[in-house]
Amino acid sequence: MKSTMMTSPLLVPDMTERAARLFSTAEVVSVQPDGTRDRSNLGDLHRRSRQLAGALQAAGLVEGERVATLMWNEREHLEAYFGIPAAGGVLHALNMRLHTQDLSHVVAHAEDRFLIVEDVLLPIYEQLRPFVQFERIFVVNRTGEKLPEGTECYELFLAGAGGRFTPPVLDENDPAAICYTSGTTGKPKGVVYSHRSICLHALCLSLPDQLSISRSETVCPISSMFHVNAWGLPFAATMAGSRIVLPGRNLQPEALLDLMAAEQVTFSAAVPTVWMAILNALESTPGRWKLSPKLRIAMGGAAAAESLLRRFDKLGVHVIHAWGMTETGPLATAATLKPEMDAWPEDDRYAQRSRQGMALPFIDLRAVNDEGECPWDGATTGELEIRGPWVAAGYHGIEQSAQWTADGWLRTGDVVSIDPEGYIRITDRLKDLIKSGGEWISSVDLENTLIGHPAIREAAVIAVPHPKWQERPLAVIVLREGATVDAEELRAFLQQSFARWQVPDAFVFADELPHTSTGKLLKTKLRNDFCGWQWE
Amino acid sequence: MKSTMMTSPLLVPDMTERAARLFSTAEVVSVQPDGTRDRSNLGDLHRRSRQLAGALQAAGLVEGERVATLMWNEREHLEAYFGIPAAGGVLHALNMRLHTQDLSHVVAHAEDRFLIVEDVLLPIYEQLRPFVQFERIFVVNRTGEKLPEGTECYELFLAGAGGRFTPPVLDENDPAAICYTSGTTGKPKGVVYSHRSICLHALCLSLPDQLSISRSETVCPISSMFHVNAWGLPFAATMAGSRIVLPGRNLQPEALLDLMAAEQVTFSAAVPTVWMAILNALESTPGRWKLSPKLRIAMGGAAAAESLLRRFDKLGVHVIHAWGMTETGPLATAATLKPEMDAWPEDDRYAQRSRQGMALPFIDLRAVNDEGECPWDGATTGELEIRGPWVAAGYHGIEQSAQWTADGWLRTGDVVSIDPEGYIRITDRLKDLIKSGGEWISSVDLENTLIGHPAIREAAVIAVPHPKWQERPLAVIVLREGATVDAEELRAFLQQSFARWQVPDAFVFADELPHTSTGKLLKTKLRNDFCGWQWE
Repeated sequence: MKSTMMTSPLLVPDMTERAARLFSTAEVVSVQPDGTRDRSNLGDLHRRSRQLAGALQAAGLVEGERVATLMWNEREHLEAYFGIPAAGGVLHALNMRLHTQDLSHVVAHAEDRFLIVEDVLLPIYEQLRPFVQFERIFVVNRTGEKLPEGTECYELFLAGAGGRFTPPVLDENDPAAICYTSGTTGKPKGVVYSHRSICLHALCLSLPDQLSISRSETVCPISSMFHVNAWGLPFAATMAGSRIVLPGRNLQPEALLDLMAAEQVTFSAAVPTVWMAILNALESTPGRWKLSPKLRIAMGGAAAAESLLRRFDKLGVHVIHAWGMTETGPLATAATLKPEMDAWPEDDRYAQRSRQGMALPFIDLRAVNDEGECPWDGATTGELEIRGPWVAAGYHGIEQSAQWTADGWLRTGDVVSIDPEGYIRITDRLKDLIKSGGEWISSVDLENTLIGHPAIREAAVIAVPHPKWQERPLAVIVLREGATVDAEELRAFLQQSFARWQVPDAFVFADELPHTSTGKLLKTKLRNDFCGWQWE
Repeated sequence: MKSTMMTSPLLVPDMTERAARLFSTAEVVSVQPDGTRDRSNLGDLHRRSRQLAGALQAAGLVEGERVATLMWNEREHLEAYFGIPAAGGVLHALNMRLHTQDLSHVVAHAEDRFLIVEDVLLPIYEQLRPFVQFERIFVVNRTGEKLPEGTECYELFLAGAGGRFTPPVLDENDPAAICYTSGTTGKPKGVVYSHRSICLHALCLSLPDQLSISRSETVCPISSMFHVNAWGLPFAATMAGSRIVLPGRNLQPEALLDLMAAEQVTFSAAVPTVWMAILNALESTPGRWKLSPKLRIAMGGAAAAESLLRRFDKLGVHVIHAWGMTETGPLATAATLKPEMDAWPEDDRYAQRSRQGMALPFIDLRAVNDEGECPWDGATTGELEIRGPWVAAGYHGIEQSAQWTADGWLRTGDVVSIDPEGYIRITDRLKDLIKSGGEWISSVDLENTLIGHPAIREAAVIAVPHPKWQERPLAVIVLREGATVDAEELRAFLQQSFARWQVPDAFVFADELPHTSTGKLLKTKLRNDFCGWQWE
C-alpha cells in the first residue's frame, strides 16, 4: 500500500506567498541608518522579493548558486531572505563582525557569485575587496552618494527585470541558505540549510509551547540576520503574518528600548550580552520606557543567569531561555515550563527556566560520556549529542568531520546534564572545563553565580595552568558602573554555593571582556592572555 | 551545492517517543463502558503502543499491511493509533456507523489483515462476520465475558510478544493510516495518510493561530476516532504532551458535559450537531456544569451558524470554526480572526468567525468557476480547490478520479466565495445548490438563517423539482422542544434577509433529520423523500 497524499514540498517562498495573500497589510518597520523608520508591509515584501528573484534569474543565477548579503537587520535584507531562495539561490548573510581574513575566507569558500551590500557597510566591503571576487555587486543606496566603481544600484537591478519571474521547480531538500559557524577556534565552517529544514524549524519554533509566534505578535529580531539567520525568526514571523520590526544598525540599549517602546514590540530575541545591557538601562532609569505589557524576550547563545530572569520579571518582561547553534537550525531546545511546574516553589521554577530546556518536537538529544549514554538524573554529565530534521549532517566542502558520531548524531561540544524532566543544563563547553587535581570544575556555574552579585556586570572563569593542580580557575570580572567589590568579598560570596576547592584562586578586574563577532565570550583570547599567569 | 542537513523523517512514533521522555506523567483519562474513568498516562501509552507494535511484528505483520480497529474514543484506540504505525502497519479505524454493506466493503477494499475490537462492539462485528475475513481478531475485553469463537484476548496478544519490538526503518512517505470518506453518494473511498502528512498536519493545526494545542491543554476529542482520525487531535495532543480525555461511547450531551466539567477540559472538537445538543443542555439548566473558563471548542463538518457562536460566547465558551474533509487531513482552514479585526463591530466579527476561515500554512486554495479562478471579492463563487502536504492526491485503488484537476488540485465539491481577507465561506455543496428559474439559491445560507430562529433546532433546505421554475427550495424544520412556529412566520423571518424568490415555497415540520454516520446532514435521503412533492 502506498500513501495517496500529495508530496507538496515545503519551500521558503511559500511563506511570503501566504503572507501576501492573507496578511499583506501587516507592517514591516525598518530602522534606517539615520534613525528614521521606514514602513512597508508583507505585501511589499512578497512583491519585492519576487522582483529580486526575477532580477537574479535575469542575471543568470543558476539554482544552488550563492548570493551574499552584507546588511543590518532591515527590509532589504528581509527581501533577500525570500528573494534569493525563491530564485533557487542560496542566501549567504555575511557576518560583518568577522575579521577581514575570515570574511574573505567564507566568501571564497562559499563561492559567492553576487553581493548585495548596503551603502553604510561599503567600508567593510572596501576592506574585503582586494581578497574577494564577486561577479556583480548591488548597493542598497540610502545616502544617495555616488556608488563606488564596479558596483550597481540595487533598486535599478530590481527594476531591470521588469517584474518578470518564472518560479523554478524546487525540491524541499534543495539548499536555501548557508551559515558559517562563528567558532571560537579554527576556520568558520559552512552549514547549508535546505528549504525543508528552514520550514520545519519555523513551524516548530512557532508552536505555543516553544516561542509561540503568531500573527498577533510584533516580532523584533535583534539577533543579527547575519548570525544563524536571526534564529530563523524572520522566516517564522513572515509565515505567521506577524508585524515585523527591524532595528537596523543602532544596537545601543537606549536605541533598542526607544524602538521597542515606540513600536510596542511583543517578541524579541538577542544574545545575553544585549539583554544585559538593556536590563541595566531599564533599571537605571525606571519608568523611562513604556514597553508592551505582553513583551516576551528570548535569550540564547550562552547560559542565562537566574538573576537575569528574576530582574526582567520584576520589570514585567518574560524571558524564554532557549538553546541552539549554527549546526542546529539554530533552535533545538527551549526552557518553557511544564504546567505542573506552576505549583513549584519560585526558586525551583527559576532554576528550571535557567536551564537550556527540552528538545523541540522531532529533535532527539542525548548526553554521552565515557560510560556511554548518561541517565537523565540531572547530575551525570556528558557531551550533548543531537539529531533531527533541522540538524546539520556535515559541513559544506568538508569530507568528514569528527563532529559527528558513527551513528550520525551531531556532537555539540557542550557538556550537559539532563534532569528527569528532560531539561538539559549546559555545565560547560568541553574545552572550557577546568581540571583541578583530577576533579572537574564548571566555569559556567561559577560565571552564573558571579553574575548574580550586585556589583558585577560580566564575569568569565578560565582554566590557567597550575604547577601543583594541573589547572586552577581564574575569574575575570567587569564591575557595574560605580560599583566596588574586592576579591575577598567575592570569595566569600562564592563559598555560599561552591566547595572551597572550586572557588577561583584569583580574581582579576577588567574594563571589558573579549567577545566573538556574535557576542559570545571569547575564552580562547582570555586563556591566551592569562597563560603566563604566576600563581602566588 | 547540496544541503548539509539531516533528512530525518517525520514519523508518527516519534510523537509517543517524545511524549514518553518528556511528558510521561501527563494523564490519559478514558471513559469505560460502565461510565467509570480509567486513568493512565502518556508513558503508559508509549510503552503499550510499543508492546502492540511488537505483538503485530510477532504476528507477522508486513510493512504497509492494514490493521482495522472497531473502538470508541478510548485508550486502547489511542494505543492503536501509535502502535500500528510504529510497526510499519496502516491504521484503519472502522466507522461503526456505516451500514454493514459499506463496512464490509471498506474492510475488503482495504484488505484489513487483523482486527482489534472492543467487546461492547462485538455485536457490530457479528453482523459483519459473514461478509469479511480477518486473519486474527483481538478483543479488548472489559466485561470479562467469554470471548466469541475465533477471537483472541487483546491483552494476551500484547503480553505474548514479551515486550520485544524492533522498530522498522520507515520512510516518512510510508503509509500510516487509511480513512474512508463517508460520502453521501457512492461507495466510501479510501485516503491513505503518510507519516509525513500526519506529522505536518499535527504541527500546523497546533500553531497558536490555528487550534493552539499545547501541553497546558486538556484535550477531549469528541469527534470520533473512526472519523478522519478525530481531526488528527490524538496525534497533535500526544506530540504536545497535552492531558487527554477520551469520552468512550456515551455521547449524550449530559454525559459529555459531566465529563468536561469533571476533568476541566480546555479544548474539544466535534461536529455541529453534537455542539448544538450540548448548547441546548447548557442553556436549559444554567449553572449545572462548571466548565473550565479556558474552554475552547472547535466545530467543523458543516457550516457554523452565527447564532451558535453567539450563544456559546454568552456561556463563556469560545468556538473556533474550522473546515476540512477526509481528503484534507482533515484540517485545511480555520476561522480565527486577525488582530486588526478586534476593532471591528461585533456583528462583523461574528460574520467573519462563522466563515470557514483561512488556509493553514503550506495549504493553497482557490475557487474556480466557468470563468476561471474567482477573485477574492467575497462575492464571486466557485468550487473550492485545494492542495498541500496533507491533501490527498488520489484514492486508494482507484486509477483516476475526476476529483482532481489536470494541474493536480483537489476538487472539494464545495461552492465558496473568498473574501479580500482570505476567508472562505462555503455557500453550498455543488450538488446542494438550488437552481430556480436560472438563478442559484444557496441552501446553506437559508439553513444558517433558519437555525438562528429561536424556535428551530435544526433545518434543511433542499431542491425539489418544479414544473415552472425547474427547482424550488423546500425547508424541512425540526422545532426545539416545546416551541411552536408556523410557515407564515418563518417566511416573514426569512424575508428580512432574503429576496422573496429565494425563500422556500414550502416548510415541512419533522421530528428529526436524517444524518450520515458522521453527523452530516444526509440531503440525498431528504431529496429522495421529497422527490414526489406536489407544489400547490
